[in-house]
Amino acid sequence: MQVYEAPLRDMRFVLHELHGLERLQQIEAFAEVNEELVDSVLEEAGRLATEVLLPLNATGDAEGCRLENGVVRTPAGFPEAYKTFREGGWPSLASDPAYGGQGLPECVSKLVEEISCAANLSFSLYPGLTHGAVQALAAHGSTELKDIYLAKMIEGVWTGSMCLTESHCGTDLGMMRTRAVPAEDGTYKITGSKIFISAGEHDLTENIVHLVLAKLPDGPPGVKGISLFLVPKFIPDADGKPGRRNGVMCTGLEHKMGLKASATCQMSFDDATGWLVGAPHKGMAAMFTMMNEERLGVGIQGLGVCSAAYQSATAYAKDRLQGRSLSGAKRPDLAADPIIVHPDVRRTLMTMRANTEGCRAVGIWVAQAVDLSKHAKTEAERQAADDFVALMTPVVKALFTDLGFETASHAIQVYGGHGYIREHGVEQYARDARIAMLYEGTNGIQALDLVGRKMPSNMGRLLRSFFHPVADWIEANRTHAGVGPMVAHLERAFGALQLATGTVGERGLRDPEEAGAAATDYLRLLGLVAQAYMLVRSAAIASDRIEAGDDESGFYQAKLTTAQFFVDRILPQSASLFLTIKSGKASTMAMPEMAF
Amino acid sequence: MQVYEAPLRDMRFVLHELHGLERLQQIEAFAEVNEELVDSVLEEAGRLATEVLLPLNATGDAEGCRLENGVVRTPAGFPEAYKTFREGGWPSLASDPAYGGQGLPECVSKLVEEISCAANLSFSLYPGLTHGAVQALAAHGSTELKDIYLAKMIEGVWTGSMCLTESHCGTDLGMMRTRAVPAEDGTYKITGSKIFISAGEHDLTENIVHLVLAKLPDGPPGVKGISLFLVPKFIPDADGKPGRRNGVMCTGLEHKMGLKASATCQMSFDDATGWLVGAPHKGMAAMFTMMNEERLGVGIQGLGVCSAAYQSATAYAKDRLQGRSLSGAKRPDLAADPIIVHPDVRRTLMTMRANTEGCRAVGIWVAQAVDLSKHAKTEAERQAADDFVALMTPVVKALFTDLGFETASHAIQVYGGHGYIREHGVEQYARDARIAMLYEGTNGIQALDLVGRKMPSNMGRLLRSFFHPVADWIEANRTHAGVGPMVAHLERAFGALQLATGTVGERGLRDPEEAGAAATDYLRLLGLVAQAYMLVRSAAIASDRIEAGDDESGFYQAKLTTAQFFVDRILPQSASLFLTIKSGKASTMAMPEMAF
Repeated sequence: MQVYEAPLRDMRFVLHELHGLERLQQIEAFAEVNEELVDSVLEEAGRLATEVLLPLNATGDAEGCRLENGVVRTPAGFPEAYKTFREGGWPSLASDPAYGGQGLPECVSKLVEEISCAANLSFSLYPGLTHGAVQALAAHGSTELKDIYLAKMIEGVWTGSMCLTESHCGTDLGMMRTRAVPAEDGTYKITGSKIFISAGEHDLTENIVHLVLAKLPDGPPGVKGISLFLVPKFIPDADGKPGRRNGVMCTGLEHKMGLKASATCQMSFDDATGWLVGAPHKGMAAMFTMMNEERLGVGIQGLGVCSAAYQSATAYAKDRLQGRSLSGAKRPDLAADPIIVHPDVRRTLMTMRANTEGCRAVGIWVAQAVDLSKHAKTEAERQAADDFVALMTPVVKALFTDLGFETASHAIQVYGGHGYIREHGVEQYARDARIAMLYEGTNGIQALDLVGRKMPSNMGRLLRSFFHPVADWIEANRTHAGVGPMVAHLERAFGALQLATGTVGERGLRDPEEAGAAATDYLRLLGLVAQAYMLVRSAAIASDRIEAGDDESGFYQAKLTTAQFFVDRILPQSASLFLTIKSGKASTMAMPEMAF
Repeated sequence: MQVYEAPLRDMRFVLHELHGLERLQQIEAFAEVNEELVDSVLEEAGRLATEVLLPLNATGDAEGCRLENGVVRTPAGFPEAYKTFREGGWPSLASDPAYGGQGLPECVSKLVEEISCAANLSFSLYPGLTHGAVQALAAHGSTELKDIYLAKMIEGVWTGSMCLTESHCGTDLGMMRTRAVPAEDGTYKITGSKIFISAGEHDLTENIVHLVLAKLPDGPPGVKGISLFLVPKFIPDADGKPGRRNGVMCTGLEHKMGLKASATCQMSFDDATGWLVGAPHKGMAAMFTMMNEERLGVGIQGLGVCSAAYQSATAYAKDRLQGRSLSGAKRPDLAADPIIVHPDVRRTLMTMRANTEGCRAVGIWVAQAVDLSKHAKTEAERQAADDFVALMTPVVKALFTDLGFETASHAIQVYGGHGYIREHGVEQYARDARIAMLYEGTNGIQALDLVGRKMPSNMGRLLRSFFHPVADWIEANRTHAGVGPMVAHLERAFGALQLATGTVGERGLRDPEEAGAAATDYLRLLGLVAQAYMLVRSAAIASDRIEAGDDESGFYQAKLTTAQFFVDRILPQSASLFLTIKSGKASTMAMPEMAF
């Protein structure tokens, strides 16, 4: 059975004890954000997740979406759940108060997203896509467009979609065929077909606002000729109410491995009326505003699945009786011991737990930097935070989603044969999680973004936004009484990362294929070190708390154990990643195409 | 689209050039087995796979099985395909000629299984389960039972099933509740419920022969009180034709993540008439005869999926146009280059290829040892081969099935977003492959079998059946002109395996939980070294052939490149596995149960 309760204690630890709200509280916009406020938001989100979203997760998977005469019907209960979600103010949590948003920090909003994705990933896609569309519109849209659309989208009365992919072009948007022709009234006529459009059509809201990439007639070839347009399903009338039906239709729903309650639409634009967002031919820049926002969000989806899969597997492992502990029966009163006594089951659960907590701590580190990048007082602070966000966005996206799928697969393994049966619910986690490694840029593309764009950017300045704090912390904590030996593990892996960075950077300058061949392993290595840094830092805090006699519930001891497990059993992957990176591109590229 | 053609060239290489048929040909039973015969069998199997089995793979997945009034309907085309399969003589390939089998070696039969699993895993389960049942019956059944059942099962006119699992007991069969009560005529009345019974009921054959574990009234508690019974769906009449319907029914079909065209049945036995197979209370021994046979077979299922996923991904990567090569456009005549030019795509494809070829070579090594263990002339030879089979069975099962799922997931990644869409067919590989990590003993159980039973058995004698040939070959080839540097990689990983073996063995003697905590990593380490040994040996052969001027097709050069890739990019995992094994059980076992 799918089991999930928001892990509030760990979330509070990450927000308040590990990262702290202090830096944010110095910012005027967040002056009133305090621990109590944040905790009550998270608690409410947890209640919504358990009471409203989780019960629809398995039923939504079984029922799926239906397309009827161009209208998409979401599964039973989804429209009501969305109404509850909207009325609770959840869509507007971190949005601009100028347009009705609540202006909470991203680091709080991302935890709410984690909770909602853990409880029901398919559901979370409907409001999820709107965030990116709002960001793009806010950053690049005209005042007129913003006034008509932003408040409605932020409130969640209307949702957004991102229409980029066409069947023959996903990663390579330069081959796009959708066309935009200027009309006399300043609008554009959009014609073309898009695929893989999440929430492109549904029955949750009265209107849907599509942000569509298309080519203007005078656009230069390739990605430099792409512009961004806003295309509403219903064109707002003078009162801002949904008016005339626009020429955009859902022509098909994809049949997918999972995420079945999320409508993945084939969209057809037939002389649809659109409004230009940003400058002509500058659509890619606007697209990346959406995309970067969404990439962090997709990473959080992976984290959400990690958390749900861990909790479900743990509940089962405590309940399922099978065999006896190798160190003697633990529950002689029962026919067998619960399987959590077995070392290999524990190894699996601890792997799931350490990765989940590691990702959560990294994710909130990056989300807090998003807040600082937008709101910090000085340009230097904003730039430093932005550097870090830019560096870590591909890492969060790829690492968290790889681990989401791995963790879901671990959950299946803990369940044994029962994990393969749909009624138990954990195989759904694996099917749902698999998409996150693909959309918003495959994880291979994330790795290329990291080594090809982020790493060389500004002479390595982005990298330093990660390397410096890690190096400083290691330096300051090498002799920490509680976690010194763990710091040594971290330092060794960090050393491997530094060497690997030099190797990839140097070879990549000479030959971009060298960077390309190393990219995925390098991203994973950086991600491992980031997780280890967060977990060992958490352990240091926990150790200090225990030292101060403050561990009634055993929470801090568990933090220490989890960090120790990570450095013992997961971080050593850094050794092999270093070797594979060092081996270079030769054997990867040597095979002639015809020999495949 | 699912693409598959039997990889006949590599199969011939593995059988004839790497392992060779010479040792088998010295055995009377295989005196007439030669390369031509084997090649024509494989070629025919390839034709059957491509023409009959592959076209039903996706349709079978979409349609699934239906239970109607106790009768299971397999998907459209399956009954006809099974008829073709049976009439082609495929079920009896490696079976005992005394009962109508063709007596071909297991190493040939396992390649045919690979081909059939690659083309249609669900289909392959129906004849697949019969093999294990035949082995158990042949080894433990009375002459009377063998005379009635074996020929029919070997011919494939009747299929077999293995009824072990109950809903509350899978791994821990000691908790079994199914009962057998002796009747006056020497038969038994079987009553109880079983779950997860592959091919427990279907419409492919006129009869189904269930091998059922149950407890006799006077049986001691736990697994020592379990006996094995033969329970036919229809009790054969005096002419050996299916007669009276027996009290065994399919009461439900499992809804599964994948493998949907394979009927996974809930079976109810209600005073069903059964015959004892083997001695009372010795059912576990008979069960392990089936199980060991099936575990090798399940490993081959993983290999089959690897092969199919690799071929499908390769075809797509050559066809899909997206982006330009980092070293300059490779196909300036096209709108973009095929994605196979991109280093990260190649890394993925090469990983899939190297693992597939590595598993195939290991699998046939073990399968040939199965032949020698049964048919070699001297007891010493048979024992040595049996040692090796016993050691490697859990490795083949767990490693190949882990890699089957990983490789299928890689295929999805190569397809990008399209990989998530059911019509493209590769997500089915992942869903189908996932079960193989679970059934016939989860992969965690395989690892425990390796470190807990096989490793300490006879003072490490089983281990030496692997260590000695590897050490000897390394010794003899350290200075091989073509592959010397690869041998050095192999030697380093082999050294890590030897050290890890000492560590696990020594600690495990003192504390079984130490072995348990290391088990999964140790199995993977041994598997990696086995693959590397096979691939580097293959490369040495290839290098010699190239040296001799014999590489018109580039096949041998590809072997060299694949082995080099494996030692560069996959074998380094041995470094991290060694570290995780060395770290011990402490952090794995430290968390109190209530802290999870």
